[in-house]
Amino acid sequence: MAENKVIRTIGVLTSGGDAPGMNAAIRAVVRTALGKGVKVRGIRRGYQGLLDEEIIDLTARDVSDTIQRGGTILQTARCEEMRTEEGQQKAAAICKKYGIDGLVVIGGDGSFAGAQKLANLGVNTVGIPGTIDLDIACTEYTIGFDTAVNTAMEAIDKVRDTSTSHERCSIIEVMGRDAGWLALWCGIANGAERILLPEEHDFDEEAIIEDIKECRKRGKKNYIIINAEGIGGSIELAKRIEAATGMEARATILGHMQRGGSPTCKDRVYASIMGAKAVDLLLEGKSNRVVGYRGGEYVDFDINEALNMQKGIPAYQYEIARELAL
Amino acid sequence: MAENKVIRTIGVLTSGGDAPGMNAAIRAVVRTALGKGVKVRGIRRGYQGLLDEEIIDLTARDVSDTIQRGGTILQTARCEEMRTEEGQQKAAAICKKYGIDGLVVIGGDGSFAGAQKLANLGVNTVGIPGTIDLDIACTEYTIGFDTAVNTAMEAIDKVRDTSTSHERCSIIEVMGRDAGWLALWCGIANGAERILLPEEHDFDEEAIIEDIKECRKRGKKNYIIINAEGIGGSIELAKRIEAATGMEARATILGHMQRGGSPTCKDRVYASIMGAKAVDLLLEGKSNRVVGYRGGEYVDFDINEALNMQKGIPAYQYEIARELAL
Amino acid sequence: MAENKVIRTIGVLTSGGDAPGMNAAIRAVVRTALGKGVKVRGIRRGYQGLLDEEIIDLTARDVSDTIQRGGTILQTARCEEMRTEEGQQKAAAICKKYGIDGLVVIGGDGSFAGAQKLANLGVNTVGIPGTIDLDIACTEYTIGFDTAVNTAMEAIDKVRDTSTSHERCSIIEVMGRDAGWLALWCGIANGAERILLPEEHDFDEEAIIEDIKECRKRGKKNYIIINAEGIGGSIELAKRIEAATGMEARATILGHMQRGGSPTCKDRVYASIMGAKAVDLLLEGKSNRVVGYRGGEYVDFDINEALNMQKGIPAYQYEIARELAL
Amino acid sequence: MAENKVIRTIGVLTSGGDAPGMNAAIRAVVRTALGKGVKVRGIRRGYQGLLDEEIIDLTARDVSDTIQRGGTILQTARCEEMRTEEGQQKAAAICKKYGIDGLVVIGGDGSFAGAQKLANLGVNTVGIPGTIDLDIACTEYTIGFDTAVNTAMEAIDKVRDTSTSHERCSIIEVMGRDAGWLALWCGIANGAERILLPEEHDFDEEAIIEDIKECRKRGKKNYIIINAEGIGGSIELAKRIEAATGMEARATILGHMQRGGSPTCKDRVYASIMGAKAVDLLLEGKSNRVVGYRGGEYVDFDINEALNMQKGIPAYQYEIARELAL
Repeated sequence: MAENKVIRTIGVLTSGGDAPGMNAAIRAVVRTALGKGVKVRGIRRGYQGLLDEEIIDLTARDVSDTIQRGGTILQTARCEEMRTEEGQQKAAAICKKYGIDGLVVIGGDGSFAGAQKLANLGVNTVGIPGTIDLDIACTEYTIGFDTAVNTAMEAIDKVRDTSTSHERCSIIEVMGRDAGWLALWCGIANGAERILLPEEHDFDEEAIIEDIKECRKRGKKNYIIINAEGIGGSIELAKRIEAATGMEARATILGHMQRGGSPTCKDRVYASIMGAKAVDLLLEGKSNRVVGYRGGEYVDFDINEALNMQKGIPAYQYEIARELAL
Repeated sequence: MAENKVIRTIGVLTSGGDAPGMNAAIRAVVRTALGKGVKVRGIRRGYQGLLDEEIIDLTARDVSDTIQRGGTILQTARCEEMRTEEGQQKAAAICKKYGIDGLVVIGGDGSFAGAQKLANLGVNTVGIPGTIDLDIACTEYTIGFDTAVNTAMEAIDKVRDTSTSHERCSIIEVMGRDAGWLALWCGIANGAERILLPEEHDFDEEAIIEDIKECRKRGKKNYIIINAEGIGGSIELAKRIEAATGMEARATILGHMQRGGSPTCKDRVYASIMGAKAVDLLLEGKSNRVVGYRGGEYVDFDINEALNMQKGIPAYQYEIARELAL
Repeated sequence: MAENKVIRTIGVLTSGGDAPGMNAAIRAVVRTALGKGVKVRGIRRGYQGLLDEEIIDLTARDVSDTIQRGGTILQTARCEEMRTEEGQQKAAAICKKYGIDGLVVIGGDGSFAGAQKLANLGVNTVGIPGTIDLDIACTEYTIGFDTAVNTAMEAIDKVRDTSTSHERCSIIEVMGRDAGWLALWCGIANGAERILLPEEHDFDEEAIIEDIKECRKRGKKNYIIINAEGIGGSIELAKRIEAATGMEARATILGHMQRGGSPTCKDRVYASIMGAKAVDLLLEGKSNRVVGYRGGEYVDFDINEALNMQKGIPAYQYEIARELAL
Repeated sequence: MAENKVIRTIGVLTSGGDAPGMNAAIRAVVRTALGKGVKVRGIRRGYQGLLDEEIIDLTARDVSDTIQRGGTILQTARCEEMRTEEGQQKAAAICKKYGIDGLVVIGGDGSFAGAQKLANLGVNTVGIPGTIDLDIACTEYTIGFDTAVNTAMEAIDKVRDTSTSHERCSIIEVMGRDAGWLALWCGIANGAERILLPEEHDFDEEAIIEDIKECRKRGKKNYIIINAEGIGGSIELAKRIEAATGMEARATILGHMQRGGSPTCKDRVYASIMGAKAVDLLLEGKSNRVVGYRGGEYVDFDINEALNMQKGIPAYQYEIARELAL
């Protein structure tokens, strides 16, 4: 590793699924680096674009009027080749060819694994957590979650309106293949009757059906179930509930709209600070680090360490979600 | 029919699918009637609630703070019984029992057919067009379309963000079983490459695939197809497109969120004026009428006449939608 | 005038106050013209930019991803020089120099007056009504009003929340120096107790104060007054009301936020169609025309005729606004 | 103090300025208490309402469909009388009269001071931080800030659009009499050129004017200054800037709209958890506590201790805000 290298050019890329706020992070990387006399190169389409040498210069003007935009101006992609040793060596060589001695990687754990490899190959790297799923263990904040959860919540508020008008059971499926954060937060924020989380693997369908029957007797006008993508099967669940309870049941799968949209204030602010911090770390000669927000502070970890951390839904929050659904 | 009856009590109900702005119309009916010395009764759950005698008094206070709310405070339902002569006679008898000599029915063509029957049975009726589909021939405006089309458009803006980041083809399915208004407007407003309308019955899938290939060669970063519910099959279409073009393709079915949400300004204003106008018509002794907005003016038609009208997507608008997709 | 000239290059500019949807109109002008084999030049900063020769070529790519953006990508300005004969002749000469034989002017009556002069000097012109104030007599729709009125309404919904919590009188000042459309629509849509319009010149402050006292006795939790910029004096009015009634009163002047924001669906669709229509008119050899929407149809008028038309707030709408405030 | 009292009835009130999310907290207090077999009484209009005995029973149904609403269903008020020893004793006596042995107070430091007095007089109390200003030292989160800062940011995004179209300097005044959190976050999130904070007392107007001149030379299309209410004077500042730089300058004072609106997801979730936690604390026999969120966890402090804490804008965040404005 090259801990004390002087950094003259910083590269930045977004990798994996896109997330609102990634542009704020890119902008902060560009502005902070330029402000400190360092050149910035943007790499398009993630690691794939790096391997394809899709590398452009970025000026302060290029990131003007981008902080409020959804998506990522650098675009993003998955890249199988970067998982191979050959791909990693090619990527490191291309960084050297373009004078990129520091690289900021905005993405999730998979993207950090690539950054780790590049660090081992002599390219100083810093990762910034960017994913709407919040499923990065070393940080309480990831770019995009705040926007995504508000997008989902606002959509569910609308479903609830019509669900009440028609006295329906509505099952709304939000993103989250392995992590139930979006489902949990929407469950609380939308006052859902049930929340189905991938962390729980299974749920008691019979208990839900009994509860719906009970609620109907008490005159409740709707019944909202937030289901996570990792559980899935919302359309079939709706059919089974309707058959078992006689209450009209409908499923909505929110899908990709949760990935887009103008970022919330939190996503803009935190992403900006993390972008600036990533540059500061590189300029201090650090490498193989990932930026996080934890315990009320912006922090950074060794990538190796970060990738070995675990996090789960806090028991207290989940318990409260259950109680409030009463 | 009872053209010149003095109206002492007006009933109001919402029927069929709910639509944002229905509360604004209910509020206007209540306030206008009370302001003119007429009592108002709210009938819950549409015609079904009428048959079940779910009838409540409505005061000015009951409709306070409702103009901005989605859904319908009176709730709504479908009602098979109201299609039978027996059901219609029972409904007319219940109106008489509760002193309801004028009835405002907010809904679509099916709901107006019920109002027509009641008018024949001596209950003065006025219909107000309420449906997010805009598929009522006698009027250029229906309550809820403006809100629904903005909800769909904003969701599609978000899908577009992520579609661009990942260079995907996105197929977004909006509501509209028989009418393509929502699809057409979103198609134009979201700058879609293709719009699939139920009015056209069929579409040339091969031409779309060729166009996608062409666009990719020119370096286009996304390809948006707006599909109407009446065409359907978005998930399968996405698979076929991905297989044929090599461009990643994803489908999103927006679903019931399009029915909810706080109404737009237009929906609040037009629904308010239509609600007031419906009361004015009843107080003038009119019956079997439906309120509309046409040619820049609030108008009213005989229900029989209204139900026989036809309307389709204007050719000029559709042509422009095609041209702009270039 | 040059009625039957063949048009090879169309120029487009935005003039006067900006309005959401102007970019949709620019995009439609560009795409429609290019689709029909005509070159397009964008003129920056309105007539001032024309006189300063700030003229750029516009391609289909230049207007990609702009339909959803607020403001105008061409920027806008006021221009005193264009009111002089000398300025007008210079402008016509510059059009000729750049081969601009057709010009689309997006703006208000003042901007159309310039288009009229240029038409007289041999440059074929078509105006598109763009102003958030809706104060163009020949059309029921102007670009930006729909977005602005929703922006104002949503802000007022928020003020209403806190006004209710604190049992306050809130006076909210919306834009509209000479025309009260924004105030009237917000008045209805926000369920205001009073609407002050510039068309009425004066209002009975004593009657408002008596009404507030009356409402407080009946236990009303807030009192909303929508005031138009043309009436003004909201801060002072709040002070006088508080002094006279004892009810806490606060003023909010919404200001320039009403001019910005992503356009609504209606603004995107109507602006797109008007942009396409403006090009179609020029290609038919028409000049000195202004596009409008009237009686449910897209129409066009001679500019001279259009500038002599009058329109006012419809009496029926205003009366209903009053009744509903009861 | 009555540390180990058994709680049979919990009262809840909102006090001071209202904040979006207060209803989520009230709802959580009600549902959690009822779920644990404890009765709940709602006190209207804050301490004033307590002194006036405006006390109502709250059921689960009363808080249905409120989590998404702005304002506070219990309303709020300032109360001078509660600052006197006489008022405090009267309040404690009324609590006893109504069997309120535990009281949840949602508000700011002033409201907690009242809770402290009541705790000394034998009423068990727990405070929940509710203020859009974020100016409560013991907690990193206060109910309403997240919604308010997003409301302000979205309004400023709109002002920015028109500011760019017209190449203006825009000064936008956000709330915050003593604390600059709203200004700082908006400054970062809206990419402002300058942020004026009450914590700094003064700012270098000459430096701003020089910077504007410099930016204009470089061709910048707008110049955004976020000003905090505590600094004020935005309208005059705009005039001075316009006179000194020749750049058109306009001020917007966002005002009370920042207090309203449907709460964001974060405000609903955190307020819900805090509401539940406040009840849990009371049921554990605790008193004179205030709930907080700090270091990534929900915590609680002795009110005396909490009122003596200090917090300021973190230097690192402010420094980054400056750098990014480059």
